[in-house]
Amino acid sequence: MKWVYGFGGGTAEGSGEQAELLGGKGAGLAEMSLLGIPVPPGFTVTTEACRHYLRGGGRFPDGLDDQLHEQMHGLEQQLGQGFGDPSRPLLVSVRSGAPVSMPGMMDTVLNLGLVRASLAADDEADARFRRDCFRRLQAMYGEVVLGIPPARFDAALREVLAGSAATSERDLGAEGLDAVVAAFDTVLAESGHELPDDPWAQLRAAIGAVFSSWNNRRAVEYRRLHDIDEKMGTGVTVQAMVFGNRGSDCATGVAFSRNPSTGERELYGEFLVDAQGEDVVAGTHTPQPIAGRAGSGGSGTDGVDGDGGLRSQFPEAYDELLRVCQTLERHFRNMQDLEFTIQHGKLYMLQTRAGKRSGPAAVRMAVEMVRERLIDRREAVRRVEPQHLTQMMAPVFDLAERQRALGEGRLLAVGLGAGPGAASGRIAFTAERASAMAGEGPVLLVRDETSPEDIVGMHAAAGILTTRGGMTSHAAVVARGMGKPCIVGADDLVVDEEAGVLRAGERSFREGESLSIDGTRGEILAGELATLPSEVLQSLDAPEGERQPLLVAAFYQLLRWADRERRLEVRANADTPEDARRAVAFGAQGIGLCRTEHMFFAHERIGWVRQMILADDDAQRRRALDELLPVQQSDFAGIFRALEGRPVTVRLLDPPLHEFLPHGDEALSALARQMGVSVGRVRDKAAALIEVNPMLGHRGCRLGITSPEIYEMQCTAIARAACLVQRAGTPVSCEIMIPLTGVVEEMARCRELVEAAVRRVCDEEGEELDSLLIGTMIEVPRAALIADQLARHADFFSFGTNDLTQMTFGFSRDDVGRFLPEYIEAGVIAGDPFARLDVDGVGQLVELASRRGRMARRDLKLGVCGEHGGDPHSIQFFERCRLDYVSCSPYRLPVARLAAARAAMAFHPGGRAEGLGDPLDPAG
Amino acid sequence: MKWVYGFGGGTAEGSGEQAELLGGKGAGLAEMSLLGIPVPPGFTVTTEACRHYLRGGGRFPDGLDDQLHEQMHGLEQQLGQGFGDPSRPLLVSVRSGAPVSMPGMMDTVLNLGLVRASLAADDEADARFRRDCFRRLQAMYGEVVLGIPPARFDAALREVLAGSAATSERDLGAEGLDAVVAAFDTVLAESGHELPDDPWAQLRAAIGAVFSSWNNRRAVEYRRLHDIDEKMGTGVTVQAMVFGNRGSDCATGVAFSRNPSTGERELYGEFLVDAQGEDVVAGTHTPQPIAGRAGSGGSGTDGVDGDGGLRSQFPEAYDELLRVCQTLERHFRNMQDLEFTIQHGKLYMLQTRAGKRSGPAAVRMAVEMVRERLIDRREAVRRVEPQHLTQMMAPVFDLAERQRALGEGRLLAVGLGAGPGAASGRIAFTAERASAMAGEGPVLLVRDETSPEDIVGMHAAAGILTTRGGMTSHAAVVARGMGKPCIVGADDLVVDEEAGVLRAGERSFREGESLSIDGTRGEILAGELATLPSEVLQSLDAPEGERQPLLVAAFYQLLRWADRERRLEVRANADTPEDARRAVAFGAQGIGLCRTEHMFFAHERIGWVRQMILADDDAQRRRALDELLPVQQSDFAGIFRALEGRPVTVRLLDPPLHEFLPHGDEALSALARQMGVSVGRVRDKAAALIEVNPMLGHRGCRLGITSPEIYEMQCTAIARAACLVQRAGTPVSCEIMIPLTGVVEEMARCRELVEAAVRRVCDEEGEELDSLLIGTMIEVPRAALIADQLARHADFFSFGTNDLTQMTFGFSRDDVGRFLPEYIEAGVIAGDPFARLDVDGVGQLVELASRRGRMARRDLKLGVCGEHGGDPHSIQFFERCRLDYVSCSPYRLPVARLAAARAAMAFHPGGRAEGLGDPLDPAG
Repeated sequence: MKWVYGFGGGTAEGSGEQAELLGGKGAGLAEMSLLGIPVPPGFTVTTEACRHYLRGGGRFPDGLDDQLHEQMHGLEQQLGQGFGDPSRPLLVSVRSGAPVSMPGMMDTVLNLGLVRASLAADDEADARFRRDCFRRLQAMYGEVVLGIPPARFDAALREVLAGSAATSERDLGAEGLDAVVAAFDTVLAESGHELPDDPWAQLRAAIGAVFSSWNNRRAVEYRRLHDIDEKMGTGVTVQAMVFGNRGSDCATGVAFSRNPSTGERELYGEFLVDAQGEDVVAGTHTPQPIAGRAGSGGSGTDGVDGDGGLRSQFPEAYDELLRVCQTLERHFRNMQDLEFTIQHGKLYMLQTRAGKRSGPAAVRMAVEMVRERLIDRREAVRRVEPQHLTQMMAPVFDLAERQRALGEGRLLAVGLGAGPGAASGRIAFTAERASAMAGEGPVLLVRDETSPEDIVGMHAAAGILTTRGGMTSHAAVVARGMGKPCIVGADDLVVDEEAGVLRAGERSFREGESLSIDGTRGEILAGELATLPSEVLQSLDAPEGERQPLLVAAFYQLLRWADRERRLEVRANADTPEDARRAVAFGAQGIGLCRTEHMFFAHERIGWVRQMILADDDAQRRRALDELLPVQQSDFAGIFRALEGRPVTVRLLDPPLHEFLPHGDEALSALARQMGVSVGRVRDKAAALIEVNPMLGHRGCRLGITSPEIYEMQCTAIARAACLVQRAGTPVSCEIMIPLTGVVEEMARCRELVEAAVRRVCDEEGEELDSLLIGTMIEVPRAALIADQLARHADFFSFGTNDLTQMTFGFSRDDVGRFLPEYIEAGVIAGDPFARLDVDGVGQLVELASRRGRMARRDLKLGVCGEHGGDPHSIQFFERCRLDYVSCSPYRLPVARLAAARAAMAFHPGGRAEGLGDPLDPAG
Repeated sequence: MKWVYGFGGGTAEGSGEQAELLGGKGAGLAEMSLLGIPVPPGFTVTTEACRHYLRGGGRFPDGLDDQLHEQMHGLEQQLGQGFGDPSRPLLVSVRSGAPVSMPGMMDTVLNLGLVRASLAADDEADARFRRDCFRRLQAMYGEVVLGIPPARFDAALREVLAGSAATSERDLGAEGLDAVVAAFDTVLAESGHELPDDPWAQLRAAIGAVFSSWNNRRAVEYRRLHDIDEKMGTGVTVQAMVFGNRGSDCATGVAFSRNPSTGERELYGEFLVDAQGEDVVAGTHTPQPIAGRAGSGGSGTDGVDGDGGLRSQFPEAYDELLRVCQTLERHFRNMQDLEFTIQHGKLYMLQTRAGKRSGPAAVRMAVEMVRERLIDRREAVRRVEPQHLTQMMAPVFDLAERQRALGEGRLLAVGLGAGPGAASGRIAFTAERASAMAGEGPVLLVRDETSPEDIVGMHAAAGILTTRGGMTSHAAVVARGMGKPCIVGADDLVVDEEAGVLRAGERSFREGESLSIDGTRGEILAGELATLPSEVLQSLDAPEGERQPLLVAAFYQLLRWADRERRLEVRANADTPEDARRAVAFGAQGIGLCRTEHMFFAHERIGWVRQMILADDDAQRRRALDELLPVQQSDFAGIFRALEGRPVTVRLLDPPLHEFLPHGDEALSALARQMGVSVGRVRDKAAALIEVNPMLGHRGCRLGITSPEIYEMQCTAIARAACLVQRAGTPVSCEIMIPLTGVVEEMARCRELVEAAVRRVCDEEGEELDSLLIGTMIEVPRAALIADQLARHADFFSFGTNDLTQMTFGFSRDDVGRFLPEYIEAGVIAGDPFARLDVDGVGQLVELASRRGRMARRDLKLGVCGEHGGDPHSIQFFERCRLDYVSCSPYRLPVARLAAARAAMAFHPGGRAEGLGDPLDPAG
């Protein structure tokens, strides 16, 4: 069994394609060596060896020792040094490297092979250098192999510095460093350990420690969070040391082949003169930008402490680095993240890997690399993660401002980041106050939770903060729908609405005081922070034909490429003509969910809605419905016009009626006056509608069955609007959806009711509808179980995965904040099932209903209109079920379009059967 | 195709076994004829002809007309009469008769074949008789064939009587009856019809009308309610008329071979002299008891108007009837319900069928018929319906008293009969008042709805009435568990708790006023009605060894026979040692559900429970838990002792914590004082626990995960109790059940917690538990879907079909009263899914979970502990799924035992493989 793969000097036993066996680092080094790029020679112990080690309870697999000796012998010969040789010691680094990048786990030991005998030196510089290396070895070995907290070494170092004239360890001479070595020896001894003076013992222990680090808490947690296979194991790369800390002609640094923040094509990075790699990473020293600091003289300025950048200080190495970057980027066809060291002016590469990037950078690079013919368009779509697009759409706080605020102790609490983006504003505790205050500048609506009554205030607010609720609470869903920053479930905060105070521990905030929320991170900060608006969102409102900024253009370009790859239709949830127009602008191919009840809340309507609900007799109710009919009709007409023939799925009234009634004595009195009845009557009627579990109550088609006049009115309004718009020359494709069906007779009767109402209108209008489908939501578990029966009465199913998740789990999304965060924290549940569809449970019902529905009716249309319709992971599952479409809030459309494309590509890696155009044509 | 089967004169073309083809009536007549019993000759048109007729849109099938003619010709020859012959007319009756008895549909036309020419008569008596027959034909033909409301004929008759000296049509002479015939002609003419004067036209129309009546509204509704196949169709029997209305030596009547009320072996029935059959049925004339009226002279008394009974008035016919009864009962081995007519002293039988019977009668007959060797024990078990036992256990109002109360207009409202039985008592509007008032006589607790806080008051009350809720609301479930009469969802009543008034329309009742409720019928009556207690229930409290009343002995005898047949184990739900003892007395083989939270409500405990919930820190909470531990322990010990080694399934804490907190400011203040904290703090904490949908909230194992100390305390109490009881020599079989599991990790972690707690106790006590299983409820749909995963951590599943039904349908049982009654009324749903398991939907999950669970773990124990565990229809389904046991409230145990036996027999008609003893051994 071959456990160890050597590399260096233009050859390698492995290659870049063997990341699974060698880990990312080992594979990158092998590939660089093969490409003739200068890498210090070394070898990689395979992930297979790691797996054997872990399974074997910490024993090296047979043959590994021999292969290590053999490889080390080769290194000694190649470099003319000896492992453990006091005068010409061969020093090596030992680094972990998993098949996928796991920044939480990185364990590294440098300078291995130093023994005390090698501290004897030729001169002061050499003595200083050897002691510097040794104390680093002591500390890293102590931490990585022996598990001694690094703070102990830091403290010991500070103590030595305090007793000397030096302010930094860089100022210490050989003598000073001797004191550090002695102090570190004490730290080791106090922990009951010592640094073995046998280089082989050091090496074996370090390799074993790196293997074991696969199972440390950080690593396990990281893998859980990122869905990384537990069984892969890590590779270990042992490499001859080169030294960036050997004088002012030495340096160490990291570089990116393109700017990872902006995506610009430039050599980007940082370096530190006379230092070792961990100095850059640790943040204890401030490195210089490779490009030099702006305003400090630019290129041409020279000198060790100068700001001229790498080019002026190390011209040859700089040129070499530029060449290496280009070579590697062209070779890997991706932006590279590199580690390098300059030893006495000569460049050595220590690592190369695909670089992490911001959302904007990901999009820009992907599009530009297609233009540069580095990658094809399908690869570009693969390169951009859905969250990259989300990032591009969310306003953000300036990072420096945030750091400052954190430093000032202004972080009040952390809640669930439910609507990405950042917002600052003055606090309002009620929707009414939010609306009133919004004229004078941005407002944050702060409540325990929100309800449909708060819609207007939420719209007026710049951001929403609730102390209760989870990722799909009313606040969260509506905020995401509106594209507003939102934090929910911030249960460390207390809202005392009566006193008009928000309490955060000892601190309290009154109405009008400033607060900032970062809906991406979930952070709530005191005071104001400046936000940066998203260019993408601005572009939606830009005059047509105006030249789009580079990044925005790239954003839309990428989406167009994604659209070619996807099979799933992407629709939007939109309740108003305005939302509908926005949805179309974001590429919606239809409306998958138009919630008619949201229309009920507009000011002039809610009164009639309430009269309809509280009516004493049919006549009174009819009158109220007659008032509502024309307003609903005009809304539907507006939506049909905006969609220009794309399908519009209208859901008939769904929520329980008490949601439309006002709360509080004052509002009830007003309503009573308006209706001309006693307050007592109104209060009694309202109280009679209260339900113990409204989620499972008298709502959805249950209302349609018991109060058919409401659905009749809605269908009449829909049909009239459709006739009107159609007659005016705009095609209409209408889909009427029955909510909460769970019993086949519900569907049969509602369908009859809908058909009769539409028929009546068509007869009156002398018009036939171009396209009308009647279908149902599948949101009650029983509906999924009897899908075959339902399909006999339904033209389409739309999975209401929010409610389906609530009922399948028995989780109320309004209350789940009580235990779900703790469940996720403790690993009882992998994640929030309201954010990512629970494939194991709820998914079974989706699959079952799809299968049974289609068996009963082959042309049954299947879609999703729950929150999951905009979630990339869930979309992947929906692609697997071969649903016809997903529907999400307009602001999630770009994400859904991309996710649908990526899902299609994952299931059909060869591309769509219809594969359009030349995939390498940069015109798109 | 043979459409018509003749009978009469000791022969028959069909037989008693052909009920499916001939209908019950036709088959009975054929069989009687074969037995040599005097039946007027006739023939039966088959159900097959009916099905052809209905499918063919109302056309007689080919050949039917010919066969009718042939049969009629035979009758003419046999009787020496002519069909349509004016002087010697052959008159026939035409009656419906479905394969199963459908009393809602019975359509009958008598005296068919009379034409106007036959009214010419020999003498006044004959003239009177012919006219009487004719006017009956007019009215019945008018109603059955032409659909004229019978009230019109009644009105016309009353008008004729008003214009004459007669007070009844029986007093009318031939002339008076001529006036009736003329008046009826007018009624017919006004409806645009006339009675055809062609006897064949009459016959064909009457047969067609009876066929069509299969689909009338009443019949369809009846079949829906009784699960009768829509496709069967009805038979039509055409039979030569015999006349009970031909003078004082004529009579007509109904008879039962045993008393259908008491089951006593006696000829029982009623007759009417000089009358036709419909006079008995219509209730317009009061018939005489066959046995004679008690106190009126007894046997020997004679005379037409006398009360001496049939024996004295028609001695020969009586003896013949007695013989016929015995013959038929022995032949059919079942109590018979007979119709007879005496014509000029000679007895004719018109119908025989198995008689309907009351619960007590069913039990007594079944047991006595085994003793008489008429049937075997298995048949006895088949003969008694589960609801027969329910009837025997419920206290009842005296029927006469009820009639009187109805007559006095004392019926206030009708709600859902949720707990069978009758109760009168004084009104109490709160649980506290109910407890306080109970000392002075029976109390009815009257509330909008009840909560666990009301338990003590419910226990104190004689009956419970709520204005809200459905058949499985808290009130309903608890009342049934307690065996108390209960009506829920009486939404015509208004409880104004504050004012202390119950309003029923214009009437109002204050605390202390008397009310009566009939929980079987759902009737609420003003004032008091005397109740009759159930003998069966009294027997439970009777001193051991005391001689049981006949009926009670039969009740238990039947149950013992049932126990031999059943495969399903039957357990009870019981929460206290007292309940547990009662359960054992009723034959429970274990406790399938012991709800630990019910123990929390006892007075001395609830305070500690509340302190546990509101505790500020772990120490305070620990202290409260330490107080609760010994009381829980002593409860468990009591239950283990009562069960003597039978399994006890203890469910760990399930309801959301806020259910344990007091409502109202006063109670909160008291609690705050007790805890030594401010009212505000207590109120805030209580408010923070309120949930939007408590049903889907922070409860069940979710509490166990987030507050493990509660489950730890409970498991410690269980384990200590088990060790204690076991050490004292009583075996213990304990099953600890985790509620509301939906995620596999919940089960895995809770199991770990339980095992650790039990281990700790066993180590402390130095005792090993004989038998401990750890399992889970399956009550969340997701649990059913991942049953295979759960089974890897569970020793048993117990289906919590109440919650499973709630979540699968998305019905909150607390709110379902809003629309479910309307749903059932309108036929949207077949019945209350909380009362009878929804096999179509919820049943799929039960089956799926059983299958997947057993696939993952072959010895997985499966049971049901929802309300459905006591429902006979649901039990049949559970037998089909081959669950191991059902568990229900103690008072449902007899029903469950019987239902389980019947279900087993339905699936294994040959008897249990182990078939015990001689099935005909009456010793049982």
